[in-house]
Amino acid sequence: MTDYGSAGVDLAGAERHVEAIRSLVTSTWGSNIVGGFGGFAAGIELPAGMRRPVLMMSTDGVGTKLEIARQLRKWDGVGYDLVAMCVDDLTAVGARPIGFVDYMAVGRLDPDRDTSVVASIASACAEVGAALVGGETAEHPGVMDRDAIDLAGAALGVVEAGEEIVGEAVDVGDLVIGLASRNLRSNGFSLVRRLLAGSDWAIRFDGSTIGETVLEPSVLYSADVLASMATGGVTGAAHITGGGLPGNLGRPLPEGLSARVDTSAWSRPPIFDHLQKIGDIDDGAMFEAFNMGIGFCLIVRPERVSDVASHVSGHDPVVIGEIVEGPEAVVIT
Amino acid sequence: MTDYGSAGVDLAGAERHVEAIRSLVTSTWGSNIVGGFGGFAAGIELPAGMRRPVLMMSTDGVGTKLEIARQLRKWDGVGYDLVAMCVDDLTAVGARPIGFVDYMAVGRLDPDRDTSVVASIASACAEVGAALVGGETAEHPGVMDRDAIDLAGAALGVVEAGEEIVGEAVDVGDLVIGLASRNLRSNGFSLVRRLLAGSDWAIRFDGSTIGETVLEPSVLYSADVLASMATGGVTGAAHITGGGLPGNLGRPLPEGLSARVDTSAWSRPPIFDHLQKIGDIDDGAMFEAFNMGIGFCLIVRPERVSDVASHVSGHDPVVIGEIVEGPEAVVIT
Repeated sequence: MTDYGSAGVDLAGAERHVEAIRSLVTSTWGSNIVGGFGGFAAGIELPAGMRRPVLMMSTDGVGTKLEIARQLRKWDGVGYDLVAMCVDDLTAVGARPIGFVDYMAVGRLDPDRDTSVVASIASACAEVGAALVGGETAEHPGVMDRDAIDLAGAALGVVEAGEEIVGEAVDVGDLVIGLASRNLRSNGFSLVRRLLAGSDWAIRFDGSTIGETVLEPSVLYSADVLASMATGGVTGAAHITGGGLPGNLGRPLPEGLSARVDTSAWSRPPIFDHLQKIGDIDDGAMFEAFNMGIGFCLIVRPERVSDVASHVSGHDPVVIGEIVEGPEAVVIT
Repeated sequence: MTDYGSAGVDLAGAERHVEAIRSLVTSTWGSNIVGGFGGFAAGIELPAGMRRPVLMMSTDGVGTKLEIARQLRKWDGVGYDLVAMCVDDLTAVGARPIGFVDYMAVGRLDPDRDTSVVASIASACAEVGAALVGGETAEHPGVMDRDAIDLAGAALGVVEAGEEIVGEAVDVGDLVIGLASRNLRSNGFSLVRRLLAGSDWAIRFDGSTIGETVLEPSVLYSADVLASMATGGVTGAAHITGGGLPGNLGRPLPEGLSARVDTSAWSRPPIFDHLQKIGDIDDGAMFEAFNMGIGFCLIVRPERVSDVASHVSGHDPVVIGEIVEGPEAVVIT
């Protein structure tokens, strides 16, 4: 006789997982959440006082950075990577995160790992003010290796109509403020894994180990950047993810404008030089694969730079470029 | 010298993929969508005239049904499965879908497959009225097999405050209307794959082939069910997914009430009997693994049954049970 358990799906384990994460999930719920845990969906009431709310959704995954987390058995940062990848795309258009859902696919359930992952997601959600209102943990026996895991998510944000930051107002002479990322965030990991294949993750590097350094969790820019946008001085913004500065800084720019970035304006964290040296990678390819130390950019009227920067001082803001006329969206010099 | 391509990530292919899906994605956008394709996020304006909108999010994946799609190289239905799994959880609380995002993880890009998958998602989104406002296609070289694929999504819905269907009003004597699922929807596939391991998918079955039968896409209940809920006669609802009727029909019930289901009230599609026979599976395990021909349930005041049913006539509505007092949430007889 066959039952679902013999097909590799652990229904009782799934129920235990749901019970284990219940308080983690509901700890992210504010007074604007309606309905309970365990229903088909919980509801989110909009922030009070919005006249014409525009909703924004964003989805992303942690990618193969998870493979390094698996090797190091260290899961407490991956939720920050997941939430950062999704929420800071919303931040780039000026939307405030209010909700989040996560999707975890696994070969089989692993209670310690799975609870740690959800705890990390819940902690990151709480930090940005998004309620974790749903999630799915799917067992894929026979399709995924027993200890394999993939992690994706989706964020919901809201912005007042007319206050979206879409770059229409970006003009020649605006300056580009770069916000520091002291680590890789969650991009370029297929290349990282190739470059560091067979490495001993315990080797000392930059005051820590190489494993801890590459696995360091992403910074969440949302709260500080939204405060800087509230000054009215920000004309455009870019979250620096896959494709790096060349692939992302041009996205908010109107046709015919170009962001000229001076790479001598900031110091790269040591991990980038280390990876570049190991792989003998040219600068162009490095900037396309990695954030190179700049995880988020604000495009700002020159006279508003100090006001805007004062709200993001925790992210070492530095002017890294300016907007000029030109055919190429981004020029890295 | 190393570049990102040599790590197995195809940046140019990713750009081609984005261009290939542009018109598929934007075809789902109504006049309530603000912002363009290719920005960090597109915005959704709420339906006009809502007084106090409550937002609902839901996430799910297609699961290992994808493995059968891969073997049959048939991708045009998987988007219906994905959208059904996410959106019909929102339907169960009375929320109208307005937005959707998809997440696709692959070993490597496959332009024909990837475009077919997004076309299927877009088509299903259009059918339920949800705008496909974002997506992520992530290459996981070295972690996933080259032709492996996983697919998840998240839906956004909205409901007027106070009009959520949360089951509070369910009472003794209410009847349970079952809506037909002529196929497996997207649940129980780890068991299906085990039972049919090594099968020739081309074997004739039920007027088609066994492969086509198990891969038949999920029905989307959203539009008809929301119309039936607008009558005011629906007190509770349940989307029958993982865990089947026993695992889902109890979710909307207040403490102390029980749904007594009479399985002789409807005819099971032949695929369920076929799977049960192959695996020598008892009825209890069958009902926990599969929908057994009922994909959605409405709990309805007895005097409102014909009115409610008239809006879901395309789904062969049939009274399959009633609400009684009792300690067990669901009793299958």
